[in-house]
Amino acid sequence: MLTAGESQDPTSPVGAGQVLSLIRDGEAVTRADLARRTGLARSTVAQRVEALLAHQLVYEAGGSVSTGGRPPTVLAFNRSAGVILVADLGATHSRLAVSDLAGAPLREQAFDTDVTRPPEEVLGWLHERFGALLEDIGRERDDVRGIGIGIPAPVAFSRGEPVAPPMMPGWDGFSIPGWFSHYYDAPVLVDNDVNIMALGEHWTHWRDTEHLLYVKVGTGIGCGIVSGRRIHRGAQGAAGDIGHVRLAGYDDVVCRCGNIGCLEEVAGGRALAARLSAAGLPAKTSRDVVALVRAGEPMAIQAVREAGRCLGEVLAECINFFNPGAIVLGGDLAEAHQQLLAGVREVSFGRSLPMATRDLRMGSSQLGDRAGVIGAAIMVIEHVLAPETVDRAIQAYMGGAPRRRQPSH
Amino acid sequence: MLTAGESQDPTSPVGAGQVLSLIRDGEAVTRADLARRTGLARSTVAQRVEALLAHQLVYEAGGSVSTGGRPPTVLAFNRSAGVILVADLGATHSRLAVSDLAGAPLREQAFDTDVTRPPEEVLGWLHERFGALLEDIGRERDDVRGIGIGIPAPVAFSRGEPVAPPMMPGWDGFSIPGWFSHYYDAPVLVDNDVNIMALGEHWTHWRDTEHLLYVKVGTGIGCGIVSGRRIHRGAQGAAGDIGHVRLAGYDDVVCRCGNIGCLEEVAGGRALAARLSAAGLPAKTSRDVVALVRAGEPMAIQAVREAGRCLGEVLAECINFFNPGAIVLGGDLAEAHQQLLAGVREVSFGRSLPMATRDLRMGSSQLGDRAGVIGAAIMVIEHVLAPETVDRAIQAYMGGAPRRRQPSH
Repeated sequence: MLTAGESQDPTSPVGAGQVLSLIRDGEAVTRADLARRTGLARSTVAQRVEALLAHQLVYEAGGSVSTGGRPPTVLAFNRSAGVILVADLGATHSRLAVSDLAGAPLREQAFDTDVTRPPEEVLGWLHERFGALLEDIGRERDDVRGIGIGIPAPVAFSRGEPVAPPMMPGWDGFSIPGWFSHYYDAPVLVDNDVNIMALGEHWTHWRDTEHLLYVKVGTGIGCGIVSGRRIHRGAQGAAGDIGHVRLAGYDDVVCRCGNIGCLEEVAGGRALAARLSAAGLPAKTSRDVVALVRAGEPMAIQAVREAGRCLGEVLAECINFFNPGAIVLGGDLAEAHQQLLAGVREVSFGRSLPMATRDLRMGSSQLGDRAGVIGAAIMVIEHVLAPETVDRAIQAYMGGAPRRRQPSH
Repeated sequence: MLTAGESQDPTSPVGAGQVLSLIRDGEAVTRADLARRTGLARSTVAQRVEALLAHQLVYEAGGSVSTGGRPPTVLAFNRSAGVILVADLGATHSRLAVSDLAGAPLREQAFDTDVTRPPEEVLGWLHERFGALLEDIGRERDDVRGIGIGIPAPVAFSRGEPVAPPMMPGWDGFSIPGWFSHYYDAPVLVDNDVNIMALGEHWTHWRDTEHLLYVKVGTGIGCGIVSGRRIHRGAQGAAGDIGHVRLAGYDDVVCRCGNIGCLEEVAGGRALAARLSAAGLPAKTSRDVVALVRAGEPMAIQAVREAGRCLGEVLAECINFFNPGAIVLGGDLAEAHQQLLAGVREVSFGRSLPMATRDLRMGSSQLGDRAGVIGAAIMVIEHVLAPETVDRAIQAYMGGAPRRRQPSH
């Protein structure tokens, strides 16, 4: 005869992970509340809480919310139960951070990098920097609960592998989680850089909208898509690749992808810099273009404004197709946002249907360079604290599967 | 002192609805299995099952899956516990159906309709036809568990109201669920017609892909978007409105929306018919255009082929932006699918990035006219059998709230 609490199915819909969610959201913070809220037998609740305590994911905060009798113990989520390591690897500059389990950054650093180098070299360097960050805050490798990495390439998200990355030729099909598994006993999530920026921006500043586009206008042009509060990655992880949409009237512009009139080749930072440079202005990168705009150089202003119009033409179709609640412009060139946004608005509002633009908000990134690391941390936390993941981790631990981490107080 | 099974929180994550899900999917079909699978106390499981039995959503199938001792009773989902009424209202023709709770159609009918008439008139007619359908299969109004309606207009989905519908001027902001609430005690879901077609097609033939575009090419042109297996409706319910994307090279074509060069005005069925008619061919509607293509009329073939190319240009951007796993062409004009698809493929594959088209499948609708009613039934069933909805319904019933339905055997 089976009694409650005995030989529980490990995939039960109310495992320890779900109990953690209730505690984390403050919806039920005593064992009695948890039993009421879940319908679980008290013995089962006690078992679930014990597992979370052993795993250090919750702690007994003492205190009481009771009004009489023996006060029940209040349980609280332990945001310091571990740390998350994240990196936003860009073509020429990268940002690294270590954050707690609530997503608050504990340390951040920026570097000049060259992501075209072979993966072992770049990841070896990244591993070293991660080690230094941990040392900096007095934490160990075993404290790392998850790693999140953004790269400027399409990514097969479920495998953490770049797919035919134009800028990173040696990385095609390279398993980034596989590489890190030699050093860390923690999940490694890899995503396209623009996707994690979209996530960071959405989570921090745009939570009141369900559907958001984050358009990065830097050396190239790409778009991160949030549909129903989740990243839409597409069938091959290639969603948001608007840089190679063909613009009408630019048939003389040949793109390095082999097509003609690609948006990126007309309105991207590299293309603008090349055009201004050919006209005798000191512009090598998109940052130089922004500097010229800030200095009031008319030719640069005119070029960025026109780039905005071209972007607006492509976004007009995205607006009709996707009907987003907000569009956020980020990337180096977005720092010249007044000129860029003016061009985008001018064209996209004129070409889109009135209903799709009625309540559409458009602005420039508020997180700037930090959007990527913030988004990567959120992505990893949502994964490692998801009820299923917590259940699996506890299962492995309880089952005596080898683990490096030792519970301690 | 609280004991399990006593004063359960109605919003418990394992309510009767979750128990129903396990039974419906065949994951746990005896009370003992349900206790093991959910971690609920046996008394709680008994209570949940009792509620489902009283609500006639499950029945005791007798039999046994045991190998010894007293055989436990096997529980089964009762797909005949009620029926779903659905309608796919088109501009000129509509399809109605009544289905069981597993989505199997019990009766279907097609009608010529005029959806530009006032809502009370159209819905009054629809109500009558629904009544006749029920009578036909020997069911009562009280057996109706949900109603699903697709209309050729943008819809505020949460309210079931058309939003500024170009073809249905009198329907703006009209509450379709409000109108039906005088006759039925069941949820009424309203969606854009192309969305329910996309859902029907995806659910029936394309479940192996997560992201799908269903493009309806009829009188006008619209697109239903499935992202992560869910309909993407957009911020104003206007997503997929690609009919008014501007095509390059058609600046002389003025659309009734006020813009120039709109895809729909160049490549939609009405536009093609008008052009062929002006050239002396007998074409009033998109169906006439298809008839001419089938008869081998060169001018019609050439026109449809060119329409496919124009559509392909717009879809090329959708492919780069959204990276779908499949694109399905539906609508009247899609019946001339060989010519249309050839044009679409010719342009869209050439203009899209190789990775986004590498595994992209493209085909014409397999459900044809039936996609809408099948999708509408799925939409309603997923809603009325969702654990939260079942819990709320049972709660109201148990709490003695007034209900028309009486449980009976």
